[in-house]
Amino acid sequence: MVEFRAYQEEARYFKYAFNAAGKVVEEAPLIVTENGIVSRAMDASHIAMAVLEMPWEMFDEYEPPSDELMYGLDMEEVTRIVRRARVTDEITLEGEDEEEVIIKLGSSGYEREFRLRSIDIDDIPDEPELDFAVEVTVVPDFIQDAVRDADLVSDTVKVGAKGNTFYFKAEGERGRVIPKVQEGAEALLTFEVEEDVETAYPLDYLKDMIQAAQGAESVRIRLGQDMPLELTFRIGPAGEGKLTFYLAPRVEE
Amino acid sequence: MVEFRAYQEEARYFKYAFNAAGKVVEEAPLIVTENGIVSRAMDASHIAMAVLEMPWEMFDEYEPPSDELMYGLDMEEVTRIVRRARVTDEITLEGEDEEEVIIKLGSSGYEREFRLRSIDIDDIPDEPELDFAVEVTVVPDFIQDAVRDADLVSDTVKVGAKGNTFYFKAEGERGRVIPKVQEGAEALLTFEVEEDVETAYPLDYLKDMIQAAQGAESVRIRLGQDMPLELTFRIGPAGEGKLTFYLAPRVEE
Amino acid sequence: MVEFRAYQEEARYFKYAFNAAGKVVEEAPLIVTENGIVSRAMDASHIAMAVLEMPWEMFDEYEPPSDELMYGLDMEEVTRIVRRARVTDEITLEGEDEEEVIIKLGSSGYEREFRLRSIDIDDIPDEPELDFAVEVTVVPDFIQDAVRDADLVSDTVKVGAKGNTFYFKAEGERGRVIPKVQEGAEALLTFEVEEDVETAYPLDYLKDMIQAAQGAESVRIRLGQDMPLELTFRIGPAGEGKLTFYLAPRVEE
Repeated sequence: MVEFRAYQEEARYFKYAFNAAGKVVEEAPLIVTENGIVSRAMDASHIAMAVLEMPWEMFDEYEPPSDELMYGLDMEEVTRIVRRARVTDEITLEGEDEEEVIIKLGSSGYEREFRLRSIDIDDIPDEPELDFAVEVTVVPDFIQDAVRDADLVSDTVKVGAKGNTFYFKAEGERGRVIPKVQEGAEALLTFEVEEDVETAYPLDYLKDMIQAAQGAESVRIRLGQDMPLELTFRIGPAGEGKLTFYLAPRVEE
Repeated sequence: MVEFRAYQEEARYFKYAFNAAGKVVEEAPLIVTENGIVSRAMDASHIAMAVLEMPWEMFDEYEPPSDELMYGLDMEEVTRIVRRARVTDEITLEGEDEEEVIIKLGSSGYEREFRLRSIDIDDIPDEPELDFAVEVTVVPDFIQDAVRDADLVSDTVKVGAKGNTFYFKAEGERGRVIPKVQEGAEALLTFEVEEDVETAYPLDYLKDMIQAAQGAESVRIRLGQDMPLELTFRIGPAGEGKLTFYLAPRVEE
Repeated sequence: MVEFRAYQEEARYFKYAFNAAGKVVEEAPLIVTENGIVSRAMDASHIAMAVLEMPWEMFDEYEPPSDELMYGLDMEEVTRIVRRARVTDEITLEGEDEEEVIIKLGSSGYEREFRLRSIDIDDIPDEPELDFAVEVTVVPDFIQDAVRDADLVSDTVKVGAKGNTFYFKAEGERGRVIPKVQEGAEALLTFEVEEDVETAYPLDYLKDMIQAAQGAESVRIRLGQDMPLELTFRIGPAGEGKLTFYLAPRVEE
C-alpha cells in the first residue's frame, strides 16, 4: 500500500541536496507527516549533522500519510540514485508498507523506479539551538572556491570575520591561502557580525557539504568563537525547503 | 598498393560504432567487397556478437577492391584511434598490400594517418537468424538510463515486455530498479509484442554496447523468452549502415 | 614589505602558461626587474628547459622593485594555484620581504590570496642559442592532436619536415601514426624549411608542454637535425610575453 506521495516537477531541487547530505551522513530517517518530510542525522563520528526540511509547500503534489511515518535510508544508495536524475526529470517520493521508499524519476510514460528497503535508524538527534556571533550570506562560488583553495595546503581551515571582511584561512608547509570577501562585494550578500570571530573546522566535511551549493542561489553561513559552523542551503522552487549542516569546530591540539 | 578506399565526410558516424564494437569484441575481420565493408565477430567468451555493416552507399566516395579482401583488426587499437576523431574530422579507410589497414582523420592538408597491421582472424561467425517475440524502438537516452540504473544494484538485468510496457528490472541487496516506458510515451518510438516476455542478460556487456547509442537517433531492441537480445544502431548520414549486437541470455543458476 | 606588484585583468593569460611550465620543471626562479619578470629553469633530468618572459607591457599595472629581485618557486604549488583561477578572475603577483610570493586571484572585494614561501634556487641556466633548419607555426589543435596521436603507439615521436610537409611520426608494435600538415593548409600558418629534417623526441615531455597550447592562438616550432626542439607560446593580451620550451632529442640506442 502506498502510504504517502510527494511529487515535484523538477528533480534537480533534490539532486544536489540529497547528494551532499548523503556524503556527510551514512544513514538518515525520513519522517513524513501532514506538514511535509523531515530528516535529521549525525555522521558516524558525531562531528557533523545534516537537517533536511521539505515542507509540503515545496512539492507540486503532496499526499500526506494518515499518521506520522518513519523510514530509514541508506544515504549512499540515495546519493547514487539522485545522481542519475536528468535535468528534465520529474521526481516522486513514495513510501510503501513501511518497508520500502520509492524514488521515481522521469516524465509521463518514461519512468525509472528505484525501490530502497527501509533500514532501522537507532536514534534521531535534536537540532542544536545556538547563538551565533556571525551570520553572512555568500554566493555559492565563494564558499566552493574557499574550501577548495584551502584544501591545497591543509586539512583544516579557519573561518572568520574581522572588521568588514569575511574570510577563510588555511596554512600548511607549502604556504598560506586566504580567500576573503569584503562588505560591498557582490559575492557577499549579507554580513552581520556581533564580534570578531575565528574558528577552525575540518576541511573534509566542508568539501562534502559544499556539494549542495551546486544549484543553490546563495549559502548562509553562521558561526561563533569555538562554536559549530552552520551552513544553510535553500531548496525548492521558491526556497520553501532547506538543508542545514552543522559542523563541530576542530580543537587545536 | 592501396587496395580499396572508403571516404566519409563525417568521421562521427564511425566513432561511436567502432568504439562500442571495440569494447565488446577483441578482434574482428574487415571484409571488403564491391558492396561495401562488413565485419562479424564474437567476443572471447562467446557471449556476445557484433555485426557491422557499412554498404558503399554510406560513404561519400567508395573505391572497391578488385576482389573480396579480408583484413583482421585489433579492435582495442581501432577504438583508441576513432576516439581521437574530432567532430569536424573527415575519415578515410584504406587497405594496403593485404597487410595494413589505414585510418585517416582530418581534412584537406591536415591529416592524421593511423596504420594498423592486419592480424589473423581464425573464424568468422554467421549472423544468427532468430524469431523474436518483442520488437521495440526507443530513444537512446532510455536504454542508456536503463542500463546504468540497473547497474546501481546488480550485474544482471531482466528485459521484458508486458501489456503496453517495455521495461528493465534489476534487483540486488540494496533495492530494486525498474526503468520502463509505456506505449504512447515519446521515448518509445515503436512497440510490437507478440507475447509477454522477460529474459535476463549480463549487464557488463550491455554497458559496452550502449556506447554506440551516443550519436544514434534511435535504438531497436528485439528479444524473446530465454533468447538472445538483439540491439541495432543505424549509422551513416541516412542510416544506410548498421551495427548489431547479439547478447546471450544469462541462465539463472 | 611589498617589493613589487604586477596586475593583469585576465588571469587566464597565466593559467595555461604556468600550468605547463609547472609540469615540465620542478622549481623555477622568478627574476623581477624594472623590465618585467623572467624565469629560466631546467627539469631535474636536464632534458627540458622552460623560459618564461613576462615584460612589464603585458601587465595592466606594473610596480617594479627598486633593485633586481629573485624568488624561488615550487612549480608544483604554482600549478595547483593557477589551476584554481576562474575565467573571470583578475590576477596579481607580489613579492614580500624576499620571502614570499603572493598570487591573488579574484576581483574587487572578492579575493583569494595564496602565499608561497620562496625556496632556494641553485643555478639558473642560460637560454641556448641555436640555429634551426626548420621553423613552422601551427594552430594549437595540430600539435595537441599530433602528440596525443603519437602517444597511442609509442613513447618517442619523430618530428620532421620534408618537401612541403611538416609531420610527426610514431611507430610501435601496434602500428604507425603519422599526423601531418601541408603548406597551404589552414592549420599550417607559417613554414620555413632550409633542409629536410627528422629528429626523435621523448613524448612524455611533449605531453606536458602542449598544455600551454590551451588558450594560445598559435604555436611556433623550431628544430634541426639531431638538435633540440623549441616550442614557443605567446602569452598576454597582444602576445607581449612568451613561454618557450627546449627539449633535447632522444638518442636512438
